[in-house]
Amino acid sequence: MIDFDEDEFRLKLITAQYELRESVQIGRPRGVLVLVNGIETAGKGDAVTNLRQWLDPRLLKVVYLDTQEPSQTEPIWQRFSGHLPRHGEVTVMFGNWYADLIYAMVNKTLTKKEIAKHRQHIETFEMDLMANDTHLVKCWFDVSNKTLKKRLKNQKSSDLYGIDWKDKAQIEKIRNFQQLIQATSTPSTQSGSETASKTPIKNPSDTHSPVWQVINGEDKDTAAKQFAQIVYKGLTAPVYQRAKAKRPFPKASIPNCLLNPDNQNIDREDYKTQLNALQAELAKLVHKHRKKNIVLLFEGMDAAGKGGAIKRLVSPLDPREYVIHNIAAPEPIELQHPYLWRFWHRLPHADAKNSTNSRLTIFDRSWYGRVLVERIEALTSQSAWQAAYEEINRFEAQLTDQGTVLIKFWLAIDIDEQLKRFKERENTPHKRFKITPDDWRNRDRWEEYVQAASDMLALTNHDNAPWHVIATNNKHQARLAVLSNCVNILKNIKK
Amino acid sequence: MIDFDEDEFRLKLITAQYELRESVQIGRPRGVLVLVNGIETAGKGDAVTNLRQWLDPRLLKVVYLDTQEPSQTEPIWQRFSGHLPRHGEVTVMFGNWYADLIYAMVNKTLTKKEIAKHRQHIETFEMDLMANDTHLVKCWFDVSNKTLKKRLKNQKSSDLYGIDWKDKAQIEKIRNFQQLIQATSTPSTQSGSETASKTPIKNPSDTHSPVWQVINGEDKDTAAKQFAQIVYKGLTAPVYQRAKAKRPFPKASIPNCLLNPDNQNIDREDYKTQLNALQAELAKLVHKHRKKNIVLLFEGMDAAGKGGAIKRLVSPLDPREYVIHNIAAPEPIELQHPYLWRFWHRLPHADAKNSTNSRLTIFDRSWYGRVLVERIEALTSQSAWQAAYEEINRFEAQLTDQGTVLIKFWLAIDIDEQLKRFKERENTPHKRFKITPDDWRNRDRWEEYVQAASDMLALTNHDNAPWHVIATNNKHQARLAVLSNCVNILKNIKK
Repeated sequence: MIDFDEDEFRLKLITAQYELRESVQIGRPRGVLVLVNGIETAGKGDAVTNLRQWLDPRLLKVVYLDTQEPSQTEPIWQRFSGHLPRHGEVTVMFGNWYADLIYAMVNKTLTKKEIAKHRQHIETFEMDLMANDTHLVKCWFDVSNKTLKKRLKNQKSSDLYGIDWKDKAQIEKIRNFQQLIQATSTPSTQSGSETASKTPIKNPSDTHSPVWQVINGEDKDTAAKQFAQIVYKGLTAPVYQRAKAKRPFPKASIPNCLLNPDNQNIDREDYKTQLNALQAELAKLVHKHRKKNIVLLFEGMDAAGKGGAIKRLVSPLDPREYVIHNIAAPEPIELQHPYLWRFWHRLPHADAKNSTNSRLTIFDRSWYGRVLVERIEALTSQSAWQAAYEEINRFEAQLTDQGTVLIKFWLAIDIDEQLKRFKERENTPHKRFKITPDDWRNRDRWEEYVQAASDMLALTNHDNAPWHVIATNNKHQARLAVLSNCVNILKNIKK
Repeated sequence: MIDFDEDEFRLKLITAQYELRESVQIGRPRGVLVLVNGIETAGKGDAVTNLRQWLDPRLLKVVYLDTQEPSQTEPIWQRFSGHLPRHGEVTVMFGNWYADLIYAMVNKTLTKKEIAKHRQHIETFEMDLMANDTHLVKCWFDVSNKTLKKRLKNQKSSDLYGIDWKDKAQIEKIRNFQQLIQATSTPSTQSGSETASKTPIKNPSDTHSPVWQVINGEDKDTAAKQFAQIVYKGLTAPVYQRAKAKRPFPKASIPNCLLNPDNQNIDREDYKTQLNALQAELAKLVHKHRKKNIVLLFEGMDAAGKGGAIKRLVSPLDPREYVIHNIAAPEPIELQHPYLWRFWHRLPHADAKNSTNSRLTIFDRSWYGRVLVERIEALTSQSAWQAAYEEINRFEAQLTDQGTVLIKFWLAIDIDEQLKRFKERENTPHKRFKITPDDWRNRDRWEEYVQAASDMLALTNHDNAPWHVIATNNKHQARLAVLSNCVNILKNIKK
């Protein structure tokens, strides 16, 4: 039994909750996500009900999504990303990525290899949540098979994992899973936390992926108190510290394609002919691969021709076949989530029922803003943008690992050509809106942008998601190059 | 043929788009929603592609949701509410509520009566969009059956309405539908706008529901230009003016239940016994009706016991069975949408796949904030809160019409009891967080709140969604009353 003064503990809990909320105001934002999983009848529901009575319910969300087959086309956590706590809040999540994984395992809908892959996605995702101000607490409620059997006589089981809890073979499976995922867990330091299944425990010091807290549900009242204490620890846990920033950050050498983005002139008639041919081919390929997630992203200096290239790319397509996201400064609500959050929910979703139907998703500017404008304008800390290269690599690897085709373009222009285009924009009435004081200001930091682009190209260029640098001093050639790159890539992907 | 200077028109279009964006800054916020429907091959896609080339794409969204069977449990427009334009933006929507309606009509999945009901939901919804700063433009692309037949030889048809466009009987149905929905339309004033199907037209002066603009798609280029001009007119249309505010607003008489919220004391043991019995019964009923949308809302003065009543209501339930929304001041993004928007997407959704599973939805404070705090603190205009009574009535009628059970509680407390509770909160460490300077400030305006509550009760009390006023000077009796009201209502609903 845990012995404590209930009123005193409630006060501590609520005080911690209010400090969490204030963490946003004082510039150390933090949210807390509590995952609840475990054996049926082990007291999960009672423990959460109890927590709800003790915490200020206005700052607590409880989320329960139906368990379902993990998606074949997106990382297993993606459908939950819209339900993550914002900074200052606590979210308790029942049906979560582990529930889906257990479901797949018990019902044998995934191979061992696929399960291993999903587990790896989950682990890196959780690490990156922790590193982005969302503290994660994972609770596993446990009871012995004997207690489970006894309790099932008196209560109905839920359908959280799609398990028949009276089927010994299925229980055996979940026990194996429990051992598997807890293999990297440390025991809860609370008393009464020995697991009923005596899980072997180790705690590698080199990982930040949060460990499982195992709660013994033999006595439900004790379990509820223990759960509340674990949540309290989560609320008051120290903020995760990113690795210290490197000062100075090692400079990548500047590739020639950024220094000399000259390309040949092309005759207007030739351009039109080639453009038409490529567009027709693209339209066919997009239609052919319409069930495939295809993500195109465009980065480049102002006036490098991103908008123009996108225009030519989509003009042969039916507007119902694609979606364009124009990425500007983040919204207040986006700033209250991990950096990549605002891209997670813009990605094509497996479940098209309530999302848009389009699988071809185009980003006009993208998550690379973190290591470009945010770096140069010091809109984020040095440690944050430096960590972003690896976060982005992991994020992109998860996408491509699940079959997304990711095509990344850097449109390269030189400083003289940019000036020419700025002036042309100022002199063309219907293009004037395209030029703002920001553009002139960015131009003053040209060298810094070139260095940042070089670093980005060096650190985020991978076989699964390579960069395509397009010389754009000649617009027409650039547009043809973008189109022909897309056509070549789409030609070579498996259906 | 429409004759115009393309560059000049593009400039006008973009200027209008920028003025739309600035409408937010200058305090006259407005969004524009363009619905695109019509006969296959009539040039919808080309027209939208053309618009995308002309407008600034960063302020334009194109949305296409799969057509599907209208929901049996929510208003037909609800699944689209997350895709409405925010103020300052233009959204073009293909698969929309009309697409779903056509689908249902062609495939005979709805009765005539159900279709009429959905049409009425749509009409009131559109009116309320217009009255809440979302300008609506409805475009119907039309071609003759002869042209349709000819064009189908050369192009595949989309699956927008689930229609076989080679089936004469189905085409006949959509022509009938076209006549039906356009019966209240005025002709577009553009040249070339005669419809191929010679729809009879009338324009009732007493409705604000926007009329259909019929676009003749015989020549696709002309149709695209005409479409752009219609969108331009939408961008520059005068802001919808609400009816002038009544000054003074007629006062409802204050009901006795607000003036004397005394209720009998109850013995602590009796309370516990009755509470347990009611909670057990409620738990059974909630489980029984778990496939039903049930919405409970709580309003009342500060410290009237909303939180406490909700606690006792949910404590017998599994936390996976319900969801609680605590409604505070709106977020920036919520202020850029119609007032009710932030409730639309908190309502239980028909498609549980990517939303939470819970059908029992509890609002701790609700949409009635518009006619309570927003009225008294002058957070909105007089004409806006005065119009809100009817908007809320329509909104609630749509919910209950689709089978939602809506239970509304006003918890009534008197001014002395409130003071006693405020002081008790200040003196109980773990309750101190519940009392803020705002509460004391609201208390100073007690009489105004009582009047606002009386007006609200008088103007929004209907058979489909009646108010339950609960005397709460005695907390225990109040909690029992809330529970027994819920139990009685749930007992009597059809499964």
